[in-house]
Amino acid sequence: MPQNPQIHLVSRPTGEPSADNFKLITLDTPALQDKQVLVKHEYMSLDPYMRGRMNDSKSYTAPQPLNAVMVGGTVGEVVESRHPQFAVGDKVVGMGGWQTYSVVDADTPGLLRKVDTSHVPISHFLGAVGMPGVTAWHGLVRIINPQAGQTLTVSAASGAVGSAFGALAKARGCRVVGFAGGKDKCDYVVNELGFDACIDYKEHSDYLSLSKALKDACPNGIDGHFENVGGMVLDAVMLRMNEFGSIAVCGMIAGYNGKPIPMTNPSLILMSRLKVQGFIVSEHPADWPEALKELGALVGSGKFKPRETVAHGLANAPEAFFGLLKGKNFGKQVVKI
Amino acid sequence: MPQNPQIHLVSRPTGEPSADNFKLITLDTPALQDKQVLVKHEYMSLDPYMRGRMNDSKSYTAPQPLNAVMVGGTVGEVVESRHPQFAVGDKVVGMGGWQTYSVVDADTPGLLRKVDTSHVPISHFLGAVGMPGVTAWHGLVRIINPQAGQTLTVSAASGAVGSAFGALAKARGCRVVGFAGGKDKCDYVVNELGFDACIDYKEHSDYLSLSKALKDACPNGIDGHFENVGGMVLDAVMLRMNEFGSIAVCGMIAGYNGKPIPMTNPSLILMSRLKVQGFIVSEHPADWPEALKELGALVGSGKFKPRETVAHGLANAPEAFFGLLKGKNFGKQVVKI
Repeated sequence: MPQNPQIHLVSRPTGEPSADNFKLITLDTPALQDKQVLVKHEYMSLDPYMRGRMNDSKSYTAPQPLNAVMVGGTVGEVVESRHPQFAVGDKVVGMGGWQTYSVVDADTPGLLRKVDTSHVPISHFLGAVGMPGVTAWHGLVRIINPQAGQTLTVSAASGAVGSAFGALAKARGCRVVGFAGGKDKCDYVVNELGFDACIDYKEHSDYLSLSKALKDACPNGIDGHFENVGGMVLDAVMLRMNEFGSIAVCGMIAGYNGKPIPMTNPSLILMSRLKVQGFIVSEHPADWPEALKELGALVGSGKFKPRETVAHGLANAPEAFFGLLKGKNFGKQVVKI
Repeated sequence: MPQNPQIHLVSRPTGEPSADNFKLITLDTPALQDKQVLVKHEYMSLDPYMRGRMNDSKSYTAPQPLNAVMVGGTVGEVVESRHPQFAVGDKVVGMGGWQTYSVVDADTPGLLRKVDTSHVPISHFLGAVGMPGVTAWHGLVRIINPQAGQTLTVSAASGAVGSAFGALAKARGCRVVGFAGGKDKCDYVVNELGFDACIDYKEHSDYLSLSKALKDACPNGIDGHFENVGGMVLDAVMLRMNEFGSIAVCGMIAGYNGKPIPMTNPSLILMSRLKVQGFIVSEHPADWPEALKELGALVGSGKFKPRETVAHGLANAPEAFFGLLKGKNFGKQVVKI
């Protein structure tokens, strides 16, 4: 059996994670048992939710165990199979973790899914046509449920979730305004992703200033918002929300590394009769087929051209992850194994 | 025509309102035109929302005009009628304002409603079997939508909305825990209103302390919360909310008089996948008949014994209103005209 380089979490970060929280080790892959499949990973995914799992505290999922392979999404190829529905050479997406190979109990529903890479590059099944894309779909369709002509906003617009949100919203005839950090990202959001406008939140030192910029970008107010970040952007958006608007809360990345960030004016939930709802995409498996079909069609047809930041080599995964938490990535962050 | 003493708002309060914001004047009642009805008020309602209307700022309703009769709910008797569906002696509820008589265009739907006072004292149509009761019903039934056996909480539990919420929740087989200020109010909430427990928020100086007390009162966590106040109670409740819980936001009284009060940890909306939704009962007219029927039956049968604080005389309305904003009332605050 092949050697399997892998990254373990060996200590829990307090605040920002650092290299000594992780350890690269190499183990043998075990022999396959009946109904198991051996997958060689081509790409692994890095996502903000991983920081939350590194804490040993109440969250929506169990903490990442210490001295075990870091969890995470992977795409790759079946290199050995003892399951009748998977053949050597099949391209598959799963939760293989931060390692080179994974042994998968392929009989367990949802652990491994075959993908068609004839029109969509395989790495996109970790992003636009994967978990981040379905996340955007669920928030847009199930929580915001917009009408054509309405104005929607999304934070972290150049990221994997935000860019998919924009493509899905434009496909429904909405005006879409993004938030991103820096001119390069904002230009990309407007020129390549087709958003109607993008606001550089780094140009604003407080939410009132940001909210003024938002007034120009959203002359008819905001009917729905998709929140990936929290903090200043959310405060600014809430001031501009129209009556009966909806806010889908998918991420609070700014709070992961330290103290909770308060919501400045929650009374706007009453004043504007808002619905603010949190969700986790993995709890809505029924949405995945419909969402993936739409996302695959948008990417396959070239209407949605998702961007990626690719780190090379498993050993560089921690460094790439630190960059992701600081917003250094541009589009979906993956690691080429 | 009779003389009509009435109270006008003559200047807008900044912070707490004071007596010089109001003026008691007496005008003649005009002669009735066709389809109009003259109502002599027996009671008028005082409600926290009135403070918000005194501001000349964005809110969910137009500001109270200056030098005009203060808005507000009233119950009374028809003393003259030029409308075929209303007869002298009919008991009616309407929005007559802070005055002794009102002339109502009785043809306009929703302005005037006849009530049956044979089993329910007339003043309760301003409280338990009126707008506050329907407010509790909408938040409970339309937003929280609880199952029997679930745990629900409500702030300002001894007030008009909170006490109705408790009665409606108990009727659905829920565990109900209230918040109130002071031992007298808490005893009343448990012993007379039939709540399972009541927490005196005045015994706690911060939301973490309050949240510990809540843990004892809600050993299975909280599935739904009805928010009348905001601030510390909401922060404490959010820490104890179960996954997929709902929070109906009906009031943020603590913020009316000054700066907005932040929500300390909005990331719990994501962590616990909460739905937080604001609403205004007047925007849901379709709910009123069903809600009033249930509330009338609860009060008429004696299962729900709402309490009132009665101020005597129109001239004392401003002082009673100041007390209401400070929580000095006990149950529904009304003024006997």
